[in-house]
Amino acid sequence: MTRHVTATGALARALESVNPPRYQAAEIQAHVDDLTKPVGSLGRLEALAVQIGTIVGDPPPALRRAAVYVFAGDHGVTAQGVSAYPSAVTAQMCANFAAGGAAINAIAATVDAEVRVVDAGVAADLHGLDGLIDRKIRHGTDDLSVGPAMSMAEAERSLLVGFDLLDAEEAADLDIVGVGEMGIGNTTSAAAITSAMTSSDVTEVTGRGTGIDDDGLTTKQRVIRDALTRVPDDASPLGVLAEVGGFEIGAMAGAILGAAANEKIVVIDGYISTAAALIACGLCPDATGYVVASHRSVEPGHVRALGALGIAPLLDLDLRLGEGTGAALSMPLVRSAAAILRDMATFSSAGVSGPAAEPA
Amino acid sequence: MTRHVTATGALARALESVNPPRYQAAEIQAHVDDLTKPVGSLGRLEALAVQIGTIVGDPPPALRRAAVYVFAGDHGVTAQGVSAYPSAVTAQMCANFAAGGAAINAIAATVDAEVRVVDAGVAADLHGLDGLIDRKIRHGTDDLSVGPAMSMAEAERSLLVGFDLLDAEEAADLDIVGVGEMGIGNTTSAAAITSAMTSSDVTEVTGRGTGIDDDGLTTKQRVIRDALTRVPDDASPLGVLAEVGGFEIGAMAGAILGAAANEKIVVIDGYISTAAALIACGLCPDATGYVVASHRSVEPGHVRALGALGIAPLLDLDLRLGEGTGAALSMPLVRSAAAILRDMATFSSAGVSGPAAEPA
Repeated sequence: MTRHVTATGALARALESVNPPRYQAAEIQAHVDDLTKPVGSLGRLEALAVQIGTIVGDPPPALRRAAVYVFAGDHGVTAQGVSAYPSAVTAQMCANFAAGGAAINAIAATVDAEVRVVDAGVAADLHGLDGLIDRKIRHGTDDLSVGPAMSMAEAERSLLVGFDLLDAEEAADLDIVGVGEMGIGNTTSAAAITSAMTSSDVTEVTGRGTGIDDDGLTTKQRVIRDALTRVPDDASPLGVLAEVGGFEIGAMAGAILGAAANEKIVVIDGYISTAAALIACGLCPDATGYVVASHRSVEPGHVRALGALGIAPLLDLDLRLGEGTGAALSMPLVRSAAAILRDMATFSSAGVSGPAAEPA
Repeated sequence: MTRHVTATGALARALESVNPPRYQAAEIQAHVDDLTKPVGSLGRLEALAVQIGTIVGDPPPALRRAAVYVFAGDHGVTAQGVSAYPSAVTAQMCANFAAGGAAINAIAATVDAEVRVVDAGVAADLHGLDGLIDRKIRHGTDDLSVGPAMSMAEAERSLLVGFDLLDAEEAADLDIVGVGEMGIGNTTSAAAITSAMTSSDVTEVTGRGTGIDDDGLTTKQRVIRDALTRVPDDASPLGVLAEVGGFEIGAMAGAILGAAANEKIVVIDGYISTAAALIACGLCPDATGYVVASHRSVEPGHVRALGALGIAPLLDLDLRLGEGTGAALSMPLVRSAAAILRDMATFSSAGVSGPAAEPA
């Protein structure tokens, strides 16, 4: 148990290092309202600009340096037939990431973001894959339908994997951190986490993942319901992660905390990374102010998870791929929101007239 | 009338130079379906990729070179109190564009797009503004509430202003063309055009623009309703433009046609540029295949206008600014969609397994 105690100490220190964003929103909002445009006319981009200002200050820097961390892990629960794809695809896709042929590679390149692939627990030997960051905890979780996916010690370790990566020198110069994942079977885990963390019925938060049929969906819901009988209503986020989580989900939660501890904007992706955010912000609510939700997934539980976090997604493009693709796609919006704070003139500075009549 | 006849000849030639996108969608769709991701998992980005492929071929180039054309014009109807801002703001904002202090300057810079500001009919002398492209037809339209906004000859001229700009050498190297506008009073014009072109009731397509109050909205609806009594049900798009349009709207319609004639992707912005697209695609339905809708504006008529064009918007960020801001914000999505076609591996090339079971 020494290892467990040690991990607890490190995790406790990690959580204590997270503070709320340091700048006040009110002053930044006043600046936004004085920019040369009708008040509110940039819609959701304005709220994003204010959030960015609270994290990095107003005016913000150009936020040029971005990276998407793609955490990969396998899931024992795939033995139950909850996914349309075989487990082997997780490792195959890691090879595809390394070769630059996946969607996240293509998209990240267009938005000037690096892709950093982290093996948090893939059930295959991935040595030799170009650029892969090896933080493998184990060759996949245990089958959550028959017992805990991982031990409490492993849950803590997975969190620290992500935290330490974002707390390290290699991440120090990043302005925007994206988190994404690859793990066949992990929408099952995400749905179970979302159900537990938001007290939602399993049917409301369970979708078709990569594309299972009706029978597969019924199986998936039964598996999750069975697993959640082991999770008490007052379970800790760490306990939820251990019972029904995944190594890549724990690592994503840790990455969110590590980004927050280092006062970085962290852009989450779809349903699975949002489940990770539920764990992260459950452990440390102060982290929430750093989190930007990139998109609304087609997974039915995603809106509920985002609602529980109190954050609204930027994009709604019917994405359901993962890999951090939504996070990457939203990074130009983050940069544009920062740019309106940094580069726009104010009504007084530009000599532009305000509304002709007094505001109603 | 000589001038009218000449213009008709030039416009007829312009319209004849537009052909549908030259590549077939089916083959590109098959390529998209073979990429290393579950079929359909990139959602709306996949349909966008297919559209881009039909225009520029598969694989597409990187689509690096982009410009947002911001057409400015004034509206005589502002005399009726249809806008929260005074007409003078149109010219003031042109100066703001020239100085680089407007939202479109800030946003375009983050997406690597140039901003090209065109005076199509601003009611002020804009000589001396840095970089302004002077195509002024007249110092603002006539008040559409009491008579035609412009003559048929001026309507044709406004179309040719936009067409010629996109048919010129200065535009030859552009991969993506954005169209946007600045014109106090022009949501009144856009609503009238949308009502006429989509046979919609005025109340369904008239919103608050830059932010008028309830009385202003009532006035705006009455003004539009009165104007539309002059527009017969079978009015030509050119007739609609002349009766209730604006110089910047005609120029945007022409720019859309010019981009289409030169086989360029053209990204429209919000409600007003979509009204311009209704004119353009009404004159020449073959142009529709080149048009990408960037966002869904908060203006209530926008969805109806997009629906009539049969195109779905990419973003939904509660924008209502104009200037081409939505068009610029969506350009990274256009580039990312092209990138998935160009840079992603296929299942066979990457050695990634497909679904475990046969598709249902």
